Amino acid sequence: MPESPRNGADALISTLVANAVTACFANPGTSEMQFVAALDREPAMRPVLCQFEGVATGAADGYGRMSDTPACTLLHLGPGYGNGLANLHNARRAFTPIVNVIGDHATYHRQYDAPLNSDIPAIVAPNSLWVKSADSPDSVAGLTAEAVAASYGPPGGPVSLILPADSAWLETKDQPVIAQKPVRPAPSGAAIEAAARAIKAAKNPVVLIGAQACLSGGLAQAARLQAAGVTVYSDTFISRTSRGAGVFAPKRMQYFGEMALAELESVDLMVFVGTTLPVAFFAYPNRPSVLVPEGCQTMSAVARSEDAVAGLAALADALGAPKDGPVQPLKLPDAMPTGKLNAYTAGASIARHMPEGAVICDDAVTSGAGVAAAAATARPHEVLALTGGAIGAGLPLAIGAAVACPDRKVLSLNGDGAAMYTIQSLWTMARENLDVTTVVFANYTYRILNVEMQRTGAGDAGPSARKLLELGDPKIDFVALATGMGVPAVRCETAEAFDAAIAAAMTGRGPMFIEAVI
Amino acid sequence: MPESPRNGADALISTLVANAVTACFANPGTSEMQFVAALDREPAMRPVLCQFEGVATGAADGYGRMSDTPACTLLHLGPGYGNGLANLHNARRAFTPIVNVIGDHATYHRQYDAPLNSDIPAIVAPNSLWVKSADSPDSVAGLTAEAVAASYGPPGGPVSLILPADSAWLETKDQPVIAQKPVRPAPSGAAIEAAARAIKAAKNPVVLIGAQACLSGGLAQAARLQAAGVTVYSDTFISRTSRGAGVFAPKRMQYFGEMALAELESVDLMVFVGTTLPVAFFAYPNRPSVLVPEGCQTMSAVARSEDAVAGLAALADALGAPKDGPVQPLKLPDAMPTGKLNAYTAGASIARHMPEGAVICDDAVTSGAGVAAAAATARPHEVLALTGGAIGAGLPLAIGAAVACPDRKVLSLNGDGAAMYTIQSLWTMARENLDVTTVVFANYTYRILNVEMQRTGAGDAGPSARKLLELGDPKIDFVALATGMGVPAVRCETAEAFDAAIAAAMTGRGPMFIEAVI
Repeated sequence: MPESPRNGADALISTLVANAVTACFANPGTSEMQFVAALDREPAMRPVLCQFEGVATGAADGYGRMSDTPACTLLHLGPGYGNGLANLHNARRAFTPIVNVIGDHATYHRQYDAPLNSDIPAIVAPNSLWVKSADSPDSVAGLTAEAVAASYGPPGGPVSLILPADSAWLETKDQPVIAQKPVRPAPSGAAIEAAARAIKAAKNPVVLIGAQACLSGGLAQAARLQAAGVTVYSDTFISRTSRGAGVFAPKRMQYFGEMALAELESVDLMVFVGTTLPVAFFAYPNRPSVLVPEGCQTMSAVARSEDAVAGLAALADALGAPKDGPVQPLKLPDAMPTGKLNAYTAGASIARHMPEGAVICDDAVTSGAGVAAAAATARPHEVLALTGGAIGAGLPLAIGAAVACPDRKVLSLNGDGAAMYTIQSLWTMARENLDVTTVVFANYTYRILNVEMQRTGAGDAGPSARKLLELGDPKIDFVALATGMGVPAVRCETAEAFDAAIAAAMTGRGPMFIEAVI
Repeated sequence: MPESPRNGADALISTLVANAVTACFANPGTSEMQFVAALDREPAMRPVLCQFEGVATGAADGYGRMSDTPACTLLHLGPGYGNGLANLHNARRAFTPIVNVIGDHATYHRQYDAPLNSDIPAIVAPNSLWVKSADSPDSVAGLTAEAVAASYGPPGGPVSLILPADSAWLETKDQPVIAQKPVRPAPSGAAIEAAARAIKAAKNPVVLIGAQACLSGGLAQAARLQAAGVTVYSDTFISRTSRGAGVFAPKRMQYFGEMALAELESVDLMVFVGTTLPVAFFAYPNRPSVLVPEGCQTMSAVARSEDAVAGLAALADALGAPKDGPVQPLKLPDAMPTGKLNAYTAGASIARHMPEGAVICDDAVTSGAGVAAAAATARPHEVLALTGGAIGAGLPLAIGAAVACPDRKVLSLNGDGAAMYTIQSLWTMARENLDVTTVVFANYTYRILNVEMQRTGAGDAGPSARKLLELGDPKIDFVALATGMGVPAVRCETAEAFDAAIAAAMTGRGPMFIEAVI
C-alpha cells in the first residue's frame, strides 16, 4: 500500500482493504481502468474476474454470507449493474453485506448523455441499502468507509458506491478511513418477556426463526425452545444455515401456502425471531397470501436487526428451558444407492460422501428436496439457499463461498434451467482453481413451472405453452459446456455412476462438474 | 382467437396481435403462467424461449430494428427485467420499439413483500419510454394498446407494461384495442432553410446523420448532399444501416475523440439530421468530451423524432443537389485470403461470400473494423451495431433479426468477451433453427480495455490488472460450447480455413458457429 493514496482509486481500494474488504468480483470497463490499475498497488485485494456481472454479484453474495464481511464488486455503469441486479436482489433478501463499486462517466462528461450513460442511482436504489456517488477524489475514502458500514445494516445488504472516472484518476491525499462496524442491538427485554408469557399461555405455540437465528449459534438456542415444548419452524429459504449431525433441525415452512397452513392448522401463537410474517411465495387464485392460520396470534420477539442468538437464549431462559436441545444424529445411508438416478438417490450419495464442513449452494429448485432429505443426518455442513427467487444463484454463490472458505468443500446444486442463467461461472471456477463440485440436475424442463401452471389455474400446457416450459429440444450437453470452460466433467445416468462421481469429487480437490441426468 | 378475451392474459395477447405484435421473446415464471397458457389460444403469437432474459431483450431489439414493429418480451418480475436491462439499454439507444411485459405479484399480494417482490417501476423507468401497471383485468387491453403506441415514439424505444398475476387470471370482456401508430412529423421548413443557408455560407460544412437517416432511404438522400459538395458523416454506432455495393457510404465519426477532432479540424459548420451533438464515448484526462472543433457552428436541421428522409430530401433540394449521389461499387476481394487469420482476412472472406440482403449484427468490438473495411464494397447488406455500449448484444440481436427476416442470412460477429455475456443465445438459435452464422473472434483478452487502460492514464497492467483483462487462462473452447447447445461448430486458425467455413455457412441454411482464433 502506498504511504498516501495517489488517486481516488487508491483511496477506494486502500480504504476497502483497511476495512477487511479484500475480495473483488469484477467485470470492468473503460470507466473502471483506474480501479484496475490501482489493484496492482494493493496486493491485499484479490481480483476475481467474472465473464458476466451476474456471476460477480452472486459470488459477492456467497462470499458475504460465509465471511460476514462484504466483498466488493466492480461493475461498469448502469448496464453492468443491471447484469448483476438479479443476484443483488437475492443478496438483499439474504441480508448479505456487499459493497458494489459502480464506475461512471467523469462528472463533467455526464451532462452529454454519452451512449453508456443512464440513471444509475435510479437503477440501483431498489436493491441498495445505501447509494452515494463520490463526485470528487477527496470524497472517496470517506464515502467508501460509509458504504462498508452501511452494508452491515443490521440486517446487512448490498450498498452502491458510484465512482465517476475523474474521481478515480484525480489525485487525493486522503488516507484510508476506518468504518465503524455496527453491533446488532440486544432485543428488547419487554418483547422477550411478552413472548415468553404468550408462549406459556398458548395451547400450541410455534416460534418461527429466520436469517441470523438459523446460523449454528441460533440453532443451538432454538433447540432449547424445542426441548421446552415449543415447536420451532424456520423460514423456507434461508441465507445460511447449519444442517446435519449434531445440529438442531427446526421444521421448515412449506413452500406451498395451503400445505403450510394445513400443517399449522392448530397453532394458536406464532412468535417471530429474526424474521417477520410468513407469506406465500406467489399468489394463486383463491389461495391465501398470509401463512398464519385464522385466529392465530402473531408477535415479534426479535427483529431482524437485533441479536437473534441473545434473543433466543433469553427466551429459552424465560421459559425455563434446559441448557441443551435435540440435535440430529449422524445417520448416513447404509449402502450405495442403485438403479435409476433421481434427486433422492443423488441426495443419498451426497450424504454418504460429503465431508464435514461442506457448504452447499442450493439452486436445485425441484431437485432440492431429495438432497435435503438425505443431508438432514449427514456430516455437519452449511446450506446457502436461493433467498430471492431469482434463479441463477447456485453457481456464483459457490464461487464466493470457495473464495471465502478455501479449506471447505463447496457443492453447487442446480436445476438445468437455473444453471444456464450464470453458466459463465464455470470459467471463473477453473481460472481460480476453486474447490467447487457443481451438480446440474438435468430434467430438460422448467419442472417447477409445470407444477405452477396447474396451481395458477392456467390449465394444461398446449403446444405454445410447452415451447416456453420444455428445455429438451435440443438437450444441452452440460459436460461439453463445463469442459469447454476448463472444468473436468462427467455425465451420470445411473445412481451408481453418480455415487462414484461424487465420491471422487468429494475426496479430490479443485473444480469438478457432474451432469446428473434425472 | 377467441370471440371475446376470456381473461386479462387473453386481452393482452389479442391486443398485441391486433397491433401486429406477433413475436414474444420470453423467459416466464410462476407469475406469468396465465400469459403462457393464453398463448395456446392465440397461435398468431410466436413464443421464443430464451434461457436468460438478456437474450430475450436483445432478441426483441434485433426484431424491432429489422421489422419496425415491436416484439414483446415476457419477463419475471424485477429480477427478470434486471437480467434483460443491459440489452434494453442498448435498445433505448437504438430507438427500438419493444413492449416489455413484466409479470408481477397479484395486486393484493404486493403488500406482503414476498421474496420476489421489488420496486419494478423504479427499476424499469430509466430504460422505458412509458411505464404502467395494469392493475385490473379491464385495464389490460387499453393499456396494452397504449404501450404499443408509446413504443413507436417517435423516436421509438422500449416500454414496460407491468402485469399483476390477478389481472392476468381474472375475467374480462374487453375486446382487443387498436393503437394509433404515430407518424413522424415532417421537419420544420424553417429549420431546413436555415440549414441550407448556413451550408451555402460555410467554407467546410458537414452534415452528421444518425438513426433513421441511416436506413437506405435516408442514405440515398444523404448521397445527394455529398454530390452537392457537403461532406456527410454518420454517427459511430447506428441502430441499423445499409452498406455495400449501390449504397452511399458516409464517413463515420471516429470512436476516439481526438482522432475525430483531428479529422474535423477545418470544419466550420456541423448540421445534425436525425441525431444530436457528437460526444466522446468515454471521458479521458485532458481530452475533449464534445467532438466539435473550436469555432465550428452547430445546428439541428431534423430532430430524431422527425422524418429524416423527407428532411434530407428537402435539404438536398434547397441546395440544388442532383437527383442522385455517389454509391459504393461492387468490389469483392480478388482471391481467397491466405495465411494467418485476423479480423482483416476474416472480413475479406465475409465480403467474398456474404449474400445480398444479409444482416450483420456487430458486437465484434476491436475486430469490427476489419470486417467493415472489406464489407464496404461487398454485396449490399445491413448492419446492426452496438448502440449503447453494453456488450453481449451480437448474439441476441441475431436471434431477433432472424425471426423478423427468415429469408435473409444473418451474421452475428462477436468478440470472445462479448459473446460470453449472452452465450445462452446459441441454444435458442438451435431450438428455432434460425439461419444465423455466428462468428466469435477469439483473442483471449478484453482487447479494447488494454487500449483504454493506456488512454485513461492508468498506465501498464501489472499482475492484478491483467487478472481482470486477460481471458486466456483457461482458454474457452467455443466449439464445445456451441455444439453443447446444439449448433454445428468449427474452429478456424488460418485464413483459408475461415474462408472455407464462411463459404459453407453462407450457402447452407440454419445455425452455424465459427470460432475464429485470431
